Amino acid sequence: MSLLTQTINQIGPLDDQAATAARRRQDMLTKPAGSLGRLEELSIRIAGITGRERPRLTKPAVIVMAADHGVARQGVSAFPAEVTPQMVLNFLRGGAAINVLARHVGAQVIVVDIGVAADLPSHPELVSRKLAYGTADFSQEPAMSLELARQALEVGITCANEAIDRGVDLLATGEMGIANTTAASAIVAAITGRPAAEVTGRGTGIDDASLARKIAVIEQALALHQPNPRDGLDVLAKVGGLEIGGLAGVILGAAARRVPVVIDGFISGSAALIAATLAPAAVNYMIAGHRSVERGHVAVYSQLDLQPLLDLNMRLGEGTGAVLAMSICQAACKVLDEMATFAEAGVSEKKGE
Amino acid sequence: MSLLTQTINQIGPLDDQAATAARRRQDMLTKPAGSLGRLEELSIRIAGITGRERPRLTKPAVIVMAADHGVARQGVSAFPAEVTPQMVLNFLRGGAAINVLARHVGAQVIVVDIGVAADLPSHPELVSRKLAYGTADFSQEPAMSLELARQALEVGITCANEAIDRGVDLLATGEMGIANTTAASAIVAAITGRPAAEVTGRGTGIDDASLARKIAVIEQALALHQPNPRDGLDVLAKVGGLEIGGLAGVILGAAARRVPVVIDGFISGSAALIAATLAPAAVNYMIAGHRSVERGHVAVYSQLDLQPLLDLNMRLGEGTGAVLAMSICQAACKVLDEMATFAEAGVSEKKGE
Repeated sequence: MSLLTQTINQIGPLDDQAATAARRRQDMLTKPAGSLGRLEELSIRIAGITGRERPRLTKPAVIVMAADHGVARQGVSAFPAEVTPQMVLNFLRGGAAINVLARHVGAQVIVVDIGVAADLPSHPELVSRKLAYGTADFSQEPAMSLELARQALEVGITCANEAIDRGVDLLATGEMGIANTTAASAIVAAITGRPAAEVTGRGTGIDDASLARKIAVIEQALALHQPNPRDGLDVLAKVGGLEIGGLAGVILGAAARRVPVVIDGFISGSAALIAATLAPAAVNYMIAGHRSVERGHVAVYSQLDLQPLLDLNMRLGEGTGAVLAMSICQAACKVLDEMATFAEAGVSEKKGE
Repeated sequence: MSLLTQTINQIGPLDDQAATAARRRQDMLTKPAGSLGRLEELSIRIAGITGRERPRLTKPAVIVMAADHGVARQGVSAFPAEVTPQMVLNFLRGGAAINVLARHVGAQVIVVDIGVAADLPSHPELVSRKLAYGTADFSQEPAMSLELARQALEVGITCANEAIDRGVDLLATGEMGIANTTAASAIVAAITGRPAAEVTGRGTGIDDASLARKIAVIEQALALHQPNPRDGLDVLAKVGGLEIGGLAGVILGAAARRVPVVIDGFISGSAALIAATLAPAAVNYMIAGHRSVERGHVAVYSQLDLQPLLDLNMRLGEGTGAVLAMSICQAACKVLDEMATFAEAGVSEKKGE
């Protein structure tokens, strides 16, 4: 049995008993019941995910997958493709936004070259899992073979497993890849059935003419390849990206190991959609980090029935919104674990209770 | 000249030069311009507040003011008044939500008894500045004299100054006081001119009958006392609370010293409104921490023209939303200070730029 199938089979339901115990404890803590809102809900869900009544999330990590996109040739991005390897080097030197924000919340940054179209120098912090020098231009031909798509998912599963084996107990998804909002929009249109124009935005900041071209490229690709909306592997192979496949694998790997996984922005969201078609139960293990400005993001969360934690007008990707949300997840668990109960603190309960 | 007048006179405009320099630097950092959204805006505003081009916020503290309310006698709260001192003790033992969340973000909790209706044991962590054993029942008579209102503001200013003198460079407001949403709703109705019913919510969780009574109590008090909406001191004396006055003082003190101050929920918001009537320029130094579930909160932020950073369905107070937002403020400053520029990282800029 392949690692992918094995991982999908391993994804089970949430642990209702742990979630119920967490909910009961929340109601005993020294605050009006429900007054910590989403922090309470989040702690209960994380109890269900981890199977622990008072989970602690002490070792967070964000997996940043980088890859290039043949479709960049169609002039769909405001930045040249050479920025992908340049930004990977920036990640390794600690100078990118994801490094700064991950340091702020105490999360490790795991940088994975899964398909950058350049040879990168070896570096102790770089995980080299290059499957190809970028994808093919999906406006002309499938982005990758089905076999390559499966391999991308398995790279992600392996990365998640390796991190979890080292003690990581909270994962987040991040990515870098010039033109990857084009792939993500194509995936979101394919899986949600919404028109390309509705789920395609300005990415890094393209003008009106480039946006029109981007939408046309996506419409043509979908007409050409006819991806099956219920088969994420087919969608990934036809209009996806290697880093998107990798992140879908990270999500499946985390879910199989009962580790909460915080989904970043629009591109990570497209990976979440792919993961959800392959294993619908994986959605229970996903935490929507933030609402991106990128216009198709709303369609992603509506399809997955998830509510993002943060809404800070961000649209950078890299995992930047997700790492900020990881800190909220940790806060939620600490509230559940560390707060005194009414009885412990000698605080009177609500009148009539 | 009184400390209050002196503090108000000291509040100046934002430093445009520092803000402009921060904005220029944000546009040079390795990300599409504007892609970090509110983090970028926040860093620019904090540069303007502090007068530093690359501010760092390394020593955050939340000042939690506690006091009791005579109006609690009118049955406007779901909890008995004895909970105010009980919760102060819980704060001192580190078992309340504000303790857990402040520890999570590395903020100090400064607990101030400004008017609890009980003698509290002396404790190294308790700042004793008790001005009275709670306020009078404002449904019958003014909550406090004008002189006491002024003293409450000055206690807050002094607490802010003492914290800043110890190196605190980021403040947040928090409070505890059974029935203080009643005082806050009365203040918000008085200053914004909105009907009591529109700005009065369920506080810690009262039922429909108690909510109707709470609204009636506020309407009667406003009719009886006719507070002057343009004079925060008058409003505070007639329908306020000692902890609310204290927090208004904290806000004025922070603004006078050019320290950003994160406003927590609805009660802190009513303090912000009072501060704004006394010194309109103080609003520039306020950062709206989060959107509370308490229904009048929207009126507060609309009056102050502030956008909350977080929206997590919280309604606990104590400073819980504000401390989470302090971490976002720190993250914003770190992005500005620590990220590499395009030139430093050797990353290509946007095409045509």
